[in-house]
Amino acid sequence: MTDEVQPVDPYQKPPTTILASTVIRNIKQLVTVAQAPIEGASGPLQVLEQAVIAVHKGSIVWIGQEGVNEPHFVADNPEDSNGITLIDARGAVITPGFVDSHTHLVFAGDRSEEFHLRRAGVSYGELLAQGRGILTTMQATREASEEELQQSALARLASVRQHGTTTVEVKTGYGLSKETEETCLRVINSLNATWQESLSSLDSIRVVPTFLGAHSVPPEYRGQRQRYVDLIVEEMLPAFVHLSRFCDVFCEREAFTVEECRRILTRAKELGYQLKVHADQLTPGGGARLAAELGATSADHLDFATDEDLDAMREAGVVATLLPGCSYTLRTPYPSARRFLDRGLHVALATDFNPGTSYCENMQMMLGLAMSAMGMSLEEALTATTINGARALALHDQIGSIEVGKRCELALWSIQDYHEIGYHFGVNLIHSVLMPK
Amino acid sequence: MTDEVQPVDPYQKPPTTILASTVIRNIKQLVTVAQAPIEGASGPLQVLEQAVIAVHKGSIVWIGQEGVNEPHFVADNPEDSNGITLIDARGAVITPGFVDSHTHLVFAGDRSEEFHLRRAGVSYGELLAQGRGILTTMQATREASEEELQQSALARLASVRQHGTTTVEVKTGYGLSKETEETCLRVINSLNATWQESLSSLDSIRVVPTFLGAHSVPPEYRGQRQRYVDLIVEEMLPAFVHLSRFCDVFCEREAFTVEECRRILTRAKELGYQLKVHADQLTPGGGARLAAELGATSADHLDFATDEDLDAMREAGVVATLLPGCSYTLRTPYPSARRFLDRGLHVALATDFNPGTSYCENMQMMLGLAMSAMGMSLEEALTATTINGARALALHDQIGSIEVGKRCELALWSIQDYHEIGYHFGVNLIHSVLMPK
Ligand SMILES: [Zn+2]
Ligand SMILES: [Zn+2]
Repeated sequence: MTDEVQPVDPYQKPPTTILASTVIRNIKQLVTVAQAPIEGASGPLQVLEQAVIAVHKGSIVWIGQEGVNEPHFVADNPEDSNGITLIDARGAVITPGFVDSHTHLVFAGDRSEEFHLRRAGVSYGELLAQGRGILTTMQATREASEEELQQSALARLASVRQHGTTTVEVKTGYGLSKETEETCLRVINSLNATWQESLSSLDSIRVVPTFLGAHSVPPEYRGQRQRYVDLIVEEMLPAFVHLSRFCDVFCEREAFTVEECRRILTRAKELGYQLKVHADQLTPGGGARLAAELGATSADHLDFATDEDLDAMREAGVVATLLPGCSYTLRTPYPSARRFLDRGLHVALATDFNPGTSYCENMQMMLGLAMSAMGMSLEEALTATTINGARALALHDQIGSIEVGKRCELALWSIQDYHEIGYHFGVNLIHSVLMPK
Repeated sequence: MTDEVQPVDPYQKPPTTILASTVIRNIKQLVTVAQAPIEGASGPLQVLEQAVIAVHKGSIVWIGQEGVNEPHFVADNPEDSNGITLIDARGAVITPGFVDSHTHLVFAGDRSEEFHLRRAGVSYGELLAQGRGILTTMQATREASEEELQQSALARLASVRQHGTTTVEVKTGYGLSKETEETCLRVINSLNATWQESLSSLDSIRVVPTFLGAHSVPPEYRGQRQRYVDLIVEEMLPAFVHLSRFCDVFCEREAFTVEECRRILTRAKELGYQLKVHADQLTPGGGARLAAELGATSADHLDFATDEDLDAMREAGVVATLLPGCSYTLRTPYPSARRFLDRGLHVALATDFNPGTSYCENMQMMLGLAMSAMGMSLEEALTATTINGARALALHDQIGSIEVGKRCELALWSIQDYHEIGYHFGVNLIHSVLMPK
């Protein structure tokens, strides 16, 4: 009886084998924001302690806890001496990278002078009459070379990424001519191509292009706005189909009417664009209702949207995107996020990074303002800046949370516990972003 | 007549000779915030374009514009081959370093859990009853070693400096026993000694110590608060005279009464301390009036101070220090800076960096909140974060502006024009701080 044979434990699962190119270990807290249940995770954000992530070809193939039912990870080609890349997260807290679903970051010039004039009491109408406001940026953008526009956008993107964003939507809308709108779309796509090419780099960023020809009526069409709408519908939209995923409109008294927006968006939808609406920011203008009617992916701003508008949006599955940077800059009341959440809408937060009303590329600032000024909890604000940002780009099946099957696009934080997010404010708590192959 | 002799121009001043150890050139904009007129400077902040600063033994000896009546700079010892150090500012915008006149940055532990509980509706009274709130920090601070307190404070100071602050006041008040209050004062002074020793380093920081034993009545004196006030007045104040420049009190219903504060501050004044008061933050408590009565250097918070209180402060020369980080964190209304400015007070802004009500070390964030939520202009906010911060520390004859005779303590910005300050928000626009010998 001395030669004991260890019996096979019938309860021990045989080790599974999973193909992996990268394994990330030593993650103190993994805030998954997962939409499906994750074993061992706790709380509404499904947080895993001492987590491990395995990645294959940029996609997450396994998530779990160190040493708990870990499968056997094998490289694609076991003969390859490189094998599996092991990344030591050094005890970092990790969340999904931020998804900033609303920016205008391709532009030339700045408008700091206008900013201070507005604060000194000069109205936006007066500024427009002086040829300032959006016209300043349009003029500078038209005069800039494609190379200049690309270089300034790349510098801004670097800062966007350093503050934790891994996917950013970028709109045109400062060209307002077929030629310059096309230039801006080429620039936006070139930024994305730069991303595609740098898939070998771990700190890259995804750019989603949006065509916003209907941002403002350019001065050469003053008094004949119908002809500018014709230009958008008949020439720009068909020409830009392969350059842009979304078509957006600025539905506002000082920009485009509901009827003009309906015509533009209807044509865009026929051509295969997905839709967005700048809605009800300055006045109750019918934009939110239009977004619901046409099945837009998101309606953004919504300061003056009515309860009925919100119900229509919810029924149509339109994401409500709130932009606290505008309220911060314009010193207008912040929309109450509670109202949107309590009515059951998906709420996203975005920077609206632009030179006129929100010169900020940092999603942590938006999260902080949402918690301080808009009544959101940390859980709601983190959801709004990740998975709901992805929803606002119709990319929630690919990004925005840390789940098996999704792209592995992570933000690493220089903190000990994710509850420090929102609590420790005004400084960049992001260590880096991480997008392994 | 071909051998022309150039006549001496009687209008050309002979070149002056000035002793200098360092000359800083290539400054695109020098925002001096000078209190006396500077030749060639424009605007209320006295901005010089293409500026030059000469420094000798840490003090500014000349300010002017590149090539305009520049004196001849000579080194202390012309034989010294090192001569004058030339610093190329590379076209930076330069302002005075921020002076953060109100922080509590020596503490152990954090209170992120409490932060989220408060947001979820738990009152501060309930938290105190649970032994949370300031008692959590007191307990952690008492249990920490001097070395631990020093290391965490040094890490925080590094971040303070990276965000542009060159002088920071630091209070005790989490020890609340003679032993731990003294430990904290030793730590604060050691931080300052680190600064004194590193005068050779260009990116140093000055620390001003404040004794705040009257921050809260510690639990061991519950029911016998008089005895804790006795301890402060009879033992702590005399013992700490050489460790602290200021004595501060928390004059508030939940802390110390006006009478208790008057007794403490009166004794402190006799001993040679300068005075500060945490006044009228949560309720109208008489703190501002007491600050005026005793000739305090500053009264801080002031959310509930009356117009009469402000008039008394102005007459007594008490600086009004506003702390927007608390309103941001506690979600209470921001005090209106306009009200203070319009009544002719000197207004300073500070972070109130502390683990309970303002976990932020970045003065740019305070400047931004003051402009967004408190109605200050850029000129007012820059004044409040530099020279008026210095006033709130009674150091305005030495620091807080860029003028001949003052210490050369500068913030270098990664911007093209100082009007970008406040306009481009939510990111750290500071390149570095600079304190040449
Ligand atoms: Zn926008
Ligand atoms: Zn304080």
